[in-house]
Amino acid sequence: MPTNLIDLRSDTLTKPTAAMRQAMLEAVVGDDVYDEDPTVVAFQDRVAAMFGMEAGLFCPSGTMTNQIAIKLLTQPQDEVICYKDAHIYKYEAGGLAFNALISNKLVDAPRGLLTVAQLRPALNPDDIHYPVSRLVALENTVNRGGGSCYRLSDIAPIADFCQEQGLGLHLDGARLFNALIATGDKAADYGQYFDTISICFSKSLGCPVGSVLLGPAAAMQRAKRLRKVLGGGMRQAGFLAAAGLYALDHHIDRLADDHRRAKLIGQALEAVPAITELLPVETNIVIAYFEHEAAAANFYNYLAQAGAKVGRIGADAVRMVTHLDFDDLQLERLMTLIRQYKG
Amino acid sequence: MPTNLIDLRSDTLTKPTAAMRQAMLEAVVGDDVYDEDPTVVAFQDRVAAMFGMEAGLFCPSGTMTNQIAIKLLTQPQDEVICYKDAHIYKYEAGGLAFNALISNKLVDAPRGLLTVAQLRPALNPDDIHYPVSRLVALENTVNRGGGSCYRLSDIAPIADFCQEQGLGLHLDGARLFNALIATGDKAADYGQYFDTISICFSKSLGCPVGSVLLGPAAAMQRAKRLRKVLGGGMRQAGFLAAAGLYALDHHIDRLADDHRRAKLIGQALEAVPAITELLPVETNIVIAYFEHEAAAANFYNYLAQAGAKVGRIGADAVRMVTHLDFDDLQLERLMTLIRQYKG
Amino acid sequence: MPTNLIDLRSDTLTKPTAAMRQAMLEAVVGDDVYDEDPTVVAFQDRVAAMFGMEAGLFCPSGTMTNQIAIKLLTQPQDEVICYKDAHIYKYEAGGLAFNALISNKLVDAPRGLLTVAQLRPALNPDDIHYPVSRLVALENTVNRGGGSCYRLSDIAPIADFCQEQGLGLHLDGARLFNALIATGDKAADYGQYFDTISICFSKSLGCPVGSVLLGPAAAMQRAKRLRKVLGGGMRQAGFLAAAGLYALDHHIDRLADDHRRAKLIGQALEAVPAITELLPVETNIVIAYFEHEAAAANFYNYLAQAGAKVGRIGADAVRMVTHLDFDDLQLERLMTLIRQYKG
Amino acid sequence: MPTNLIDLRSDTLTKPTAAMRQAMLEAVVGDDVYDEDPTVVAFQDRVAAMFGMEAGLFCPSGTMTNQIAIKLLTQPQDEVICYKDAHIYKYEAGGLAFNALISNKLVDAPRGLLTVAQLRPALNPDDIHYPVSRLVALENTVNRGGGSCYRLSDIAPIADFCQEQGLGLHLDGARLFNALIATGDKAADYGQYFDTISICFSKSLGCPVGSVLLGPAAAMQRAKRLRKVLGGGMRQAGFLAAAGLYALDHHIDRLADDHRRAKLIGQALEAVPAITELLPVETNIVIAYFEHEAAAANFYNYLAQAGAKVGRIGADAVRMVTHLDFDDLQLERLMTLIRQYKG
Repeated sequence: MPTNLIDLRSDTLTKPTAAMRQAMLEAVVGDDVYDEDPTVVAFQDRVAAMFGMEAGLFCPSGTMTNQIAIKLLTQPQDEVICYKDAHIYKYEAGGLAFNALISNKLVDAPRGLLTVAQLRPALNPDDIHYPVSRLVALENTVNRGGGSCYRLSDIAPIADFCQEQGLGLHLDGARLFNALIATGDKAADYGQYFDTISICFSKSLGCPVGSVLLGPAAAMQRAKRLRKVLGGGMRQAGFLAAAGLYALDHHIDRLADDHRRAKLIGQALEAVPAITELLPVETNIVIAYFEHEAAAANFYNYLAQAGAKVGRIGADAVRMVTHLDFDDLQLERLMTLIRQYKG
Repeated sequence: MPTNLIDLRSDTLTKPTAAMRQAMLEAVVGDDVYDEDPTVVAFQDRVAAMFGMEAGLFCPSGTMTNQIAIKLLTQPQDEVICYKDAHIYKYEAGGLAFNALISNKLVDAPRGLLTVAQLRPALNPDDIHYPVSRLVALENTVNRGGGSCYRLSDIAPIADFCQEQGLGLHLDGARLFNALIATGDKAADYGQYFDTISICFSKSLGCPVGSVLLGPAAAMQRAKRLRKVLGGGMRQAGFLAAAGLYALDHHIDRLADDHRRAKLIGQALEAVPAITELLPVETNIVIAYFEHEAAAANFYNYLAQAGAKVGRIGADAVRMVTHLDFDDLQLERLMTLIRQYKG
Repeated sequence: MPTNLIDLRSDTLTKPTAAMRQAMLEAVVGDDVYDEDPTVVAFQDRVAAMFGMEAGLFCPSGTMTNQIAIKLLTQPQDEVICYKDAHIYKYEAGGLAFNALISNKLVDAPRGLLTVAQLRPALNPDDIHYPVSRLVALENTVNRGGGSCYRLSDIAPIADFCQEQGLGLHLDGARLFNALIATGDKAADYGQYFDTISICFSKSLGCPVGSVLLGPAAAMQRAKRLRKVLGGGMRQAGFLAAAGLYALDHHIDRLADDHRRAKLIGQALEAVPAITELLPVETNIVIAYFEHEAAAANFYNYLAQAGAKVGRIGADAVRMVTHLDFDDLQLERLMTLIRQYKG
Repeated sequence: MPTNLIDLRSDTLTKPTAAMRQAMLEAVVGDDVYDEDPTVVAFQDRVAAMFGMEAGLFCPSGTMTNQIAIKLLTQPQDEVICYKDAHIYKYEAGGLAFNALISNKLVDAPRGLLTVAQLRPALNPDDIHYPVSRLVALENTVNRGGGSCYRLSDIAPIADFCQEQGLGLHLDGARLFNALIATGDKAADYGQYFDTISICFSKSLGCPVGSVLLGPAAAMQRAKRLRKVLGGGMRQAGFLAAAGLYALDHHIDRLADDHRRAKLIGQALEAVPAITELLPVETNIVIAYFEHEAAAANFYNYLAQAGAKVGRIGADAVRMVTHLDFDDLQLERLMTLIRQYKG
């Protein structure tokens, strides 16, 4: 329900539409800890089938699906290789160490898109002084890469490399639907490449709560144990799953609009002199780096006073994320504000 | 919405009433990870005030509120003292070790009701061979004690002992409202005795999902970090909190009915010869021990065939839990079934 | 080097003999972190061969060998089944949770000697609320059982049970040589029953420092990684291994003397009226329970003033452990002291 | 005991001299788990006094002293800030996550020497998405910095910054004596700047086994608990401490010779064309980077065939560490070999 306020801090801020609320109201529910919530089961099965994987597990957050996947695929004293600004390393409250007791090997890459050439030297030698290289984790789209996308043709050689090296491969698909829309890749082709995939429904898809972890059926059984110990076992969770089912039917195609709007914002920002770097806009995320911290703050405050909230990421950058609650009228207003900015 | 099927396996099985669903539908929500969901905030504040504590934190499950509390009050290499069949030890998937890296000192007690006389010898000596005794955790009502209740007059000397010994004191109040109804103690008097209290809303109170952790405001800030790392940070969680607010208004007094029905079931069971021990029925839980495993299985199967599900706890016992979706008509049918049982 | 002082608090108190010191002085050493200490390698190989296992790993303590074994054989969220007063649970500073993040199922048994009849009901059901039953750990001799011994004929059915249930089986052989001497069982027959065995050389065998972990060669490679992360990788550890090699040649048969002396102490204690229970003396440990705490303290203080130190275990018990530095002259004096005791 | 073989892979390879062995042979020992080994106590006290700290704790390795210190100064979900190639991150087998469940913020710096300007931006914002910045860890000398040294005048502002920010400050002093010799700083001035210091005796000081952790007396009591749970409690450890005492008397001043020899090696390497970068030689470590992996391998193999072992660190670099078992005759031979190299 778009309002006068423009809020592009994150696509997690979206609120369920009236129709999605209605779908929630009518959900048939049961106790999911007993595996008796039919809506949760249907949702998990549908998402798994959609991505060509065996089974799914509904969880309260994308952090939980990521953390469970990482714990499933590693043991203490192992190491995960990921982008230096990956969500799993940077924004999950220290979960790699806290939940899985694993180390991290951080790799830099243009816009966070890793390649085999970067992964290979990140492997540890087989020596007791080092943690065991065990897992590669990708993010698609890459948040801190400015919503940059892997194509499946980028992923295939990484999957081959992981198989060759005996490494697991996890996908943090917090915004995977955005990547599908942007690349035209097919959801059903994803399953073959990954051990586990985490898909978030409370971002662009507009659901209130929840992510689905996908993987082999046996792994999802073990995942249920991990979800329990982390405190993620919910009872009549079908209300939340019903929102997810609704989103699959109604909120995917419209992501193209979010992307169109983000690109237009990007074009407007190109004219702001204080911006020194604008990450290419591929999906629904716009990231702009300013010449210095004060310049970023100035722009941020200017927009805030005009009723447009954007996000700060680091001292010298702002992030804007388009979403379900941001429409063309708001876009028009924001574009005008940017054009009028004397920064 | 009681149906023909009698299901007393657990009070977690209750489904939201139509009125509760309506309250959920109308909830005003926001992104709770940004602390912007007004319904969540109102719910947390109301529960905290009700129990005389500073602040509350809404979480997806009682396991999560317990685990966060235990982690808040201990460090790795510490030890918690609790009843030998406490939920935190027995049914939280190994969370004491997994989440908090702490040891457990288990204490036996009649119907799980601990006293200072039992706690004192459970303290470890100050010797590096032992974990550090750091925390006492009580459960009220005690699930495996057959829904037995602590009175506040039982708790006061335990709280004194903990203060004297420098131990934290946590209350797993999964069914604390049942204890309040049964004892007549005042909710507002609880806060003074405990460092943290966990209160579940998806059991007898009939909510779909959620528990609230209570404690000092500073501790709840740290708890938010722990909730994040465990994956319990939810976005528009106000839908679930709205159910909790509704339950506070409409589902507390009716617990007396659950207790009345449980007592009547207990009386009927007294006439079953194969039952060797029936725990005194104080609240909404009925636990009966049978002379042997086959006798328990026989009774369980007899009821199942007649459309009445009960719980198995251990090989030789059954548990029945009355709740919102179990009414007097169902009670009548169950009583008849029990009376007709030739076991 | 026995002195006037009688010190039976523990057999860990033994000091290397002059001959053992000489063997240490002459050790050929190297950097064991590089696998280049020939004395360590020879010691590990000899102990492994002796017990019919593939490989060994020398560590600074029995706590470390136990903890590494338990970590090797479990994953976080698993559970170990052991005697309620097992060293691994009671005296390793909370290591089960701290190092391995596992839960414990404690089993009581006469003198700590577990049987399949006790183990079977300790298994958890296959249900996500419970940790996964994964490991059985035995102790031989059983410290808190009063140095009680398993025979191999007791162990065989437990090993069968573990295999049937898919459970690992670890032996804490802190005093395994005492058991071998007492039972006449052959060391070489042990390897077939256990996944891992921990053997301590700084107790009755009289070495200054060190234990050896035994197991399959591949597991010992993984154990080396765990030893490293725990900080147990030592450099020129051959000095300590040389003491172990010396002990294997010279300190095993003499354990019979320790046992004889312990039995005589036990006989003398039978006449002390304040002692309410004396555990049967099978090896080198004597444990006596007194009618109350004051009685135990009285006896303890009486001996202390006469120059004989004994151990306190719990409030109402004393423990005496015979060893290399306790000879017949000291025995005579101690017997006289006990006979003269008016307690 | 220098031999024909030149082995500069590490200074951990040094073997005790005949005189050090004799000191070990004559050590008066006791059970250090009971705090009754007088040689261990004397050694701990002496090292603590030497560095101006309250108390010391003897441990089997520098990895253990570092890991205990880090655990003492952090809690799970905290973060340590350190050099990107710090030993605690890179060579302790994943211990930051495994033992302390903490995250790491890696900082790059010329030759590993951190400054406040690098530390300040490494602090996390106070936001639940991030681990809590809690600890800074320095290394002196910096191994991967080529044995580079902090002066106390470099350390003072870092200590001020840590105090200002409420951060702990740990020093991994694996080769701190080398830094003291090179800088002329006084050992006694170190204590004021650090919460904990770890000092290794099995590197240049030539002891077989052991490191000492220094810190406040109360912290060392807690450290004893951690040493126990990690399995580092040793019995008659006085043999090893005796070597340490000997080293303090006899092996410190001679480090100047190691440094002189290392510098000469460095000068010889300057003439090797395949070497693209030679880290400045400040102490006993020489690190040379080659134009490519094959060039490094070629040089390494050339030396190996001539009876001189050097270390590989990464694919394109070699490391040489001078030490007690490397004398001027060996230096002469090595210099000749380097000069004759056609690489």
